[in-house]
Amino acid sequence: MPESSVAPQHTKPGVADPLFVRACRSEAIERTPIWIMRQAGRYLPEYRALRERYDFLTSCRTPELACEITLQPVRRLGVDAAILFSDILVPLPGMGVDVAFNPGPQLARTIRSADDVRRLRVPDPAESTGYVLDAIRLLRRELAGTVPLIGFAGAPLTMAAYLVEGGATKSFEAFKRLLFGAPATAEALLRVCTETVAAYLSAQVEAGAQAAMLFDTWAGQFGPRDVEATVLPRVRDVVDAVRRAAVARGVPDLPIIYYAGEAAGWLSACRTTGADVIGVDWRIGLDAARASLGEGVALQGNLDPGILLGEPTIIRREAARVIAEAGGGPGRGPARGHIFNLGHGILPSTPPDHAKLLVDTVRELTEVTR
Amino acid sequence: MPESSVAPQHTKPGVADPLFVRACRSEAIERTPIWIMRQAGRYLPEYRALRERYDFLTSCRTPELACEITLQPVRRLGVDAAILFSDILVPLPGMGVDVAFNPGPQLARTIRSADDVRRLRVPDPAESTGYVLDAIRLLRRELAGTVPLIGFAGAPLTMAAYLVEGGATKSFEAFKRLLFGAPATAEALLRVCTETVAAYLSAQVEAGAQAAMLFDTWAGQFGPRDVEATVLPRVRDVVDAVRRAAVARGVPDLPIIYYAGEAAGWLSACRTTGADVIGVDWRIGLDAARASLGEGVALQGNLDPGILLGEPTIIRREAARVIAEAGGGPGRGPARGHIFNLGHGILPSTPPDHAKLLVDTVRELTEVTR
Repeated sequence: MPESSVAPQHTKPGVADPLFVRACRSEAIERTPIWIMRQAGRYLPEYRALRERYDFLTSCRTPELACEITLQPVRRLGVDAAILFSDILVPLPGMGVDVAFNPGPQLARTIRSADDVRRLRVPDPAESTGYVLDAIRLLRRELAGTVPLIGFAGAPLTMAAYLVEGGATKSFEAFKRLLFGAPATAEALLRVCTETVAAYLSAQVEAGAQAAMLFDTWAGQFGPRDVEATVLPRVRDVVDAVRRAAVARGVPDLPIIYYAGEAAGWLSACRTTGADVIGVDWRIGLDAARASLGEGVALQGNLDPGILLGEPTIIRREAARVIAEAGGGPGRGPARGHIFNLGHGILPSTPPDHAKLLVDTVRELTEVTR
Repeated sequence: MPESSVAPQHTKPGVADPLFVRACRSEAIERTPIWIMRQAGRYLPEYRALRERYDFLTSCRTPELACEITLQPVRRLGVDAAILFSDILVPLPGMGVDVAFNPGPQLARTIRSADDVRRLRVPDPAESTGYVLDAIRLLRRELAGTVPLIGFAGAPLTMAAYLVEGGATKSFEAFKRLLFGAPATAEALLRVCTETVAAYLSAQVEAGAQAAMLFDTWAGQFGPRDVEATVLPRVRDVVDAVRRAAVARGVPDLPIIYYAGEAAGWLSACRTTGADVIGVDWRIGLDAARASLGEGVALQGNLDPGILLGEPTIIRREAARVIAEAGGGPGRGPARGHIFNLGHGILPSTPPDHAKLLVDTVRELTEVTR
């Protein structure tokens, strides 16, 4: 991959910020930007070909591989943003907990007592995840201003839940037993996760990420009271820290995105995070999401990933519906404050052509023709 | 178990209907009734003792065993309703698809083509699930009017999803591929499931069930548009059929309950089912649920099952919160149109004493003292 001597910049003087970044700030836009959660992944043959030679963790930990995988969907689909190829659990070894992927994550140990929590470390991102920061620097050079790069991390609650459960789970019995049975220990664990995530995501911004996204995959396993008392204040802490890092870097309006699945019952509370963009799954319409959240925050979503397994006519119909529910479409152009995306990660059995059809359809249906 | 020569009755002349039934009808009540989803199950030592001798399907298919298991939580907890011990998949063999439990359900084959759908049968409930109807008749004698008996079935969408997936799944890729890729076949499958469930649940009412509940466990995997176009109209068909069976049985106001998890984003649409009671998971507050659904329908729910793994003080605090969000509590008495329940099935690792504490707390906090 070619090297470049140009230092990574967030914006170039005299050049407008990228479409995606302006949409995140709810500014006027010329069409609705689109990217796809998990756009770099198993549904792409070029990804599977690379993964035949390198395992998942090696792919995450080798900047050149992470860079190449990140660029694959940008080349094939023409999406409006790149998102770093990585995993929300990469900070765990630095905290003192090794993790393997077979293919789901398996932690070497679980955190269930106050002693377990005390033994956790808040890692220095440059020391424990320097490969992520290197990948970001490399990607900024490779992307060369074509589309912006999104950095990301798991939100504190989701990180904490993984540490307690030790892997994927359906009912979160161990984590809920801790949260409702030993709330002080759970709170201490959440604070370690908050500090870790805040430092990690801030370091990504310092390395050149042009937007920062927090994935709270498991927040939707909790009800409004616990979300408001326990989950969202820690997200706010991370957002504040990342904002400070962005200010220090000279980009006070760097977009911060918060995504929580199954959040329809407490979506309005997401405003308290201070995020610029709220990611919305497909279990609520964007019209209802807007009514719940009010103006002044952008929405990202929210097509059911399962739609991309269906007929092209249904893909087009449903893309048009999402655009219309956001307030845009033919004759109306792009809705302000809407970034098109799926409501959750793209499914591994998705035909790549269907993903391409979606990107093209969103462009066609929202572009303002002059 | 003692026999009785008294024929099963829905109501006795001159005797008020049971508390639970009156609460379902949103009538005035003297305290908030409570029962617990999956109240007969693995968290109970007496259930585990019985299951050491009999496997799951034998327990479902032997009326005396199903009866005994159904009664276990009634005896131990003092809940205000019994729910038949069974499984939503017991009608499948009659449709032509055998099912095993190891311990999750595993179907002998999957339904994925129009030909597969054509080969399904709509079974005669007396022929294919006579043991369920026998268990209901036996239970009505055993309960002898103490608490009412709820019959139940899986809703059409959830049954159809199981038939396509062949077992539990996280992403529903096969079912969504059918629904969005071959919608006519999916529609035909949903119609067979609708007819099956309608006949099966109606037969339970004819055998003596005093309330009928539809579990739509997987409806929450779909967005508002698909729910309104595809999921809820079929629920309405079942509700209408069960209502006709209840009228024929002389109980025109037999309560019908519809439960869907992860439904916060389209809860208001549940009114179109015609159900008397909407079951609500814990991802939305009952105050928000009431605002979404309006008056004239009862709510059942909605404590996070994980709370019962926690400290007694937290169990009491959270029970009080649910009661308050429904509009009841000390000084206010029971909220009209609220049946206390968990937002999902009780977790297997729940201490039975915590379940008992919950039942006692709800009683204490809502009873009108004279």
